[in-house]
Amino acid sequence: MSSKMASCIFCKIIKGEIPSFKLFESDKTLAFLDINPLSRGHALVIPKFHGEKLTDIPDDQLSEILSVTKKLVKATGATDYNILQNNGAIAHQVVPHVHFHMIPKPNETEGLGIGWPLKAADMDKLKGYYEEVKSKM
Amino acid sequence: MSSKMASCIFCKIIKGEIPSFKLFESDKTLAFLDINPLSRGHALVIPKFHGEKLTDIPDDQLSEILSVTKKLVKATGATDYNILQNNGAIAHQVVPHVHFHMIPKPNETEGLGIGWPLKAADMDKLKGYYEEVKSKM
Repeated sequence: MSSKMASCIFCKIIKGEIPSFKLFESDKTLAFLDINPLSRGHALVIPKFHGEKLTDIPDDQLSEILSVTKKLVKATGATDYNILQNNGAIAHQVVPHVHFHMIPKPNETEGLGIGWPLKAADMDKLKGYYEEVKSKM
Repeated sequence: MSSKMASCIFCKIIKGEIPSFKLFESDKTLAFLDINPLSRGHALVIPKFHGEKLTDIPDDQLSEILSVTKKLVKATGATDYNILQNNGAIAHQVVPHVHFHMIPKPNETEGLGIGWPLKAADMDKLKGYYEEVKSKM
């Protein structure tokens, strides 16, 4: 085990060393209530495989994430909600173990706040950039 | 075909009736650049299956979403980024066809802005709520 895993709070939750409000558990997936919720029903779905960012997790370890997220939505009865997975401190990631937030949005003040700082769209630049990214897919 | 599908802009993109900067396409999944990007590399991954909210999409139609999202991250070279899927107008959903945003976060001003209006945590209330949700999982 790496020292990063040894100190990871979510790995400790997975191992049962820290208690949690578990809502789903399988060989590779765990879901539990966020204890600092933005709204009633705010929950997390995580792969048990330790990795900091989404690209660190093998595809097969992610295969249940979205189906479990759907289960959370249904169990909480949320009708409007955000699914959010942050990568990097600048992108608001606090715990360096991949986690997907399911955050009900019951009204304007509770739940996730979203800022949408649109850039001026330049279709010619976008077209050039597109060719560049497409070549790497 | 329902009238909702006939008028859906993403269904039109899938059918090729509206052009797009396609980055990935398979039988059930499409990825393309967002033409109103929050940052360079902002792209969308969508199931071809039409549904407004995540719970409207069958699990098997979601099976490639996260692996394709990982491909986008790698192709754009993003190191810090947010994955976001909004459900409902109040939760900032604009197009009523499920879509996952991959939004690079290169600096504080570009990319997704996040508001995190923490509620005061009440562990007793949370415990009671937990029992209620757990019974529905």
